[in-house]
Amino acid sequence: MNVKFSDRVTAPDLQGEIVAGILKAAASPELISFGGGLPNAISFPVEGMAVAAQKVLEENGVVALQYSSTAGYLPLRQHIANRYNEQGITHITADDILITNGSQQAIDLITACLVNDGDQVVVEGPTYMAALQIFHLYNPEVITIPLTNDGIDCEALEATLAETSPKFAYLIPNFQNPTGLTYTQEVREKAAEIFKKHDIYVVEDNPYGDLRFRGHAGDSFSTLLGEQCLMLGTFSKTVSPGVRIGWVTCTDPALKAKLTNYKMTMDLHTSIFTQMILSKYLDENSLDEHMAKIIALYQDKADKMMAAMDKYFPEGVTFTKPEGGMFIWATLPEGVVAFDVMNKALEKHVLVTPGDPFYETDRNVPTMRINYSNSSDEDIEKGIKVLGEAMAEILGK
Amino acid sequence: MNVKFSDRVTAPDLQGEIVAGILKAAASPELISFGGGLPNAISFPVEGMAVAAQKVLEENGVVALQYSSTAGYLPLRQHIANRYNEQGITHITADDILITNGSQQAIDLITACLVNDGDQVVVEGPTYMAALQIFHLYNPEVITIPLTNDGIDCEALEATLAETSPKFAYLIPNFQNPTGLTYTQEVREKAAEIFKKHDIYVVEDNPYGDLRFRGHAGDSFSTLLGEQCLMLGTFSKTVSPGVRIGWVTCTDPALKAKLTNYKMTMDLHTSIFTQMILSKYLDENSLDEHMAKIIALYQDKADKMMAAMDKYFPEGVTFTKPEGGMFIWATLPEGVVAFDVMNKALEKHVLVTPGDPFYETDRNVPTMRINYSNSSDEDIEKGIKVLGEAMAEILGK
Repeated sequence: MNVKFSDRVTAPDLQGEIVAGILKAAASPELISFGGGLPNAISFPVEGMAVAAQKVLEENGVVALQYSSTAGYLPLRQHIANRYNEQGITHITADDILITNGSQQAIDLITACLVNDGDQVVVEGPTYMAALQIFHLYNPEVITIPLTNDGIDCEALEATLAETSPKFAYLIPNFQNPTGLTYTQEVREKAAEIFKKHDIYVVEDNPYGDLRFRGHAGDSFSTLLGEQCLMLGTFSKTVSPGVRIGWVTCTDPALKAKLTNYKMTMDLHTSIFTQMILSKYLDENSLDEHMAKIIALYQDKADKMMAAMDKYFPEGVTFTKPEGGMFIWATLPEGVVAFDVMNKALEKHVLVTPGDPFYETDRNVPTMRINYSNSSDEDIEKGIKVLGEAMAEILGK
Repeated sequence: MNVKFSDRVTAPDLQGEIVAGILKAAASPELISFGGGLPNAISFPVEGMAVAAQKVLEENGVVALQYSSTAGYLPLRQHIANRYNEQGITHITADDILITNGSQQAIDLITACLVNDGDQVVVEGPTYMAALQIFHLYNPEVITIPLTNDGIDCEALEATLAETSPKFAYLIPNFQNPTGLTYTQEVREKAAEIFKKHDIYVVEDNPYGDLRFRGHAGDSFSTLLGEQCLMLGTFSKTVSPGVRIGWVTCTDPALKAKLTNYKMTMDLHTSIFTQMILSKYLDENSLDEHMAKIIALYQDKADKMMAAMDKYFPEGVTFTKPEGGMFIWATLPEGVVAFDVMNKALEKHVLVTPGDPFYETDRNVPTMRINYSNSSDEDIEKGIKVLGEAMAEILGK
């Protein structure tokens, strides 16, 4: 067959190539992997979901197996709205929530509904690599605003918005993937003031926000900006990624209608079977109690990993100290290429993700993402030692 | 907020408007609806799925709730491949199958991977309206080939392909939605000979193929064309639409990789939880035995509806005699507008879908789609009587 593929799938895809390479490396059976981002299996309430599945099929089986509405199962949307309300985000109702196939699909829906070829979108540098991959399908100009230890660089943001007209800014203010960094309250307020002066949506992705083990939550941009902010959420890090249930909030009825119609065209609706089982699980169990176990575990893993980094990383290497989430971000001295360290560590069967795919344009960066959520204590100790040695070898060259 | 939507969601959407109107009309509590396309609830194996859910969570709960691969759950893909092999489509293996969120998502993946702005795609006239909606997102030139009672019009197809270079032809050869028509074996072979001469994929959508209550199955284009044909399938009409599990077959490794990567970018994978439960259900139950009940029911409904049409439709109105599936297509005398009949019938609380949204360009057509899968025997008798009276009134004008 000699049929040409579309331009959108023939453009270079550095993110995809790196992920493919990492997946290939990860196939080694002896590997200690800090390269992925899998939730620890402790976060999966297998028994609670089994009880919920039984009840849903017994009480309401025909509804769970029939076609359903695109917006999503109302009791599940109500659970999500209630949770926002408890957290002080009081203006969100169930009607403002669209259920999606993980929050990943929500990123796609927003981009599809807002972005034409050549339109601008703003991202943090670095940012979630799969978000960059989605944006690339729509061929926008991706504008990177540096991320500091306190959050997005507000001066750079202000200067950029003075000169450009991006459709939206995609931000991850809590325990960011890849850096583990969190915006201070001051940066949130300052950035919100800047955003208020412009016609730009703020897409606040928050997959890890509930997994806080230190410090206090800052305001959501939704609280600071109202309709201007779309919040993305997911049950992937708190209940199960396998069920593929996320959501987007949207209080602008015109945009909400576009997002919903677009999803209807793409796949009609997210599995109602799964939505009803998840909703029943949330009816009958305390999500806070369940998450307390995950939070304690991740805090312990993070603390052990940071201790090992203090012990084994050579001088000149710094790393972030996350208050939650699943990732630490290490920075080597300027000029050192993280890819070289990755390859050196891989020789001894330890995998990390170099920073490159998390940037739109920066390459051969000296940064790397290190995941702690899914490794044993022994692997953390052993793997960070190997990684430190690999760093020392590369630094010594 | 003053942020413009993208062009792809601001283009006119006749299909969407008509569906919205129908959904609004369908909200009436007294309505007899032949307007939709819901499987009958008898087709939902509630108990079998409950048993399967229990076993999956007991035996393999952590895998069912963790992230998984984009290709889909291997045992489920093996079930699908085995079924094709049993049906004489012997060249498909589990590796040639990509699991999607209903076959609707597969239509989108194919279009996204092949179609640039202004590229051509071929459809039957009339065709599945949601496929038209998906195509419109990618702004192609949609070329319509008329559908005859024996299948696609091969002369028109040959003439069209001589002058154009469409990326793919989207066909529904079995009990088509909307017409209920099936391609004869002769048309299949003739069309295949024509397709063979051109670089064009044939996308064979087959949501209803297993629901045959009369006649014999013709060859799949996959058998006739091999790699040139992509088959779409779904469990929506045989097990459950609520679980949102469909698939696409692709034996061209380069295209398969593009489709898989595109899906990975969109939503990572289809719910592994649901895939494993469905696969377990198929392990432990005979799909053929289950479908026999659906087929007997739909045959009975179709026969009762055709008998009522013979009795109540005025002279000059013809209708298709489906060998399976869920739909009958009625044709009024030329010049009569099906929308007028729809509105007249709606006054007496009977809903049908006029033919217009199933065409790319034809408007004020004299055809309508009438669904029989989900109505009681009494509603079929009563509703077709009302519809016949509405036709007579409009014809008498």
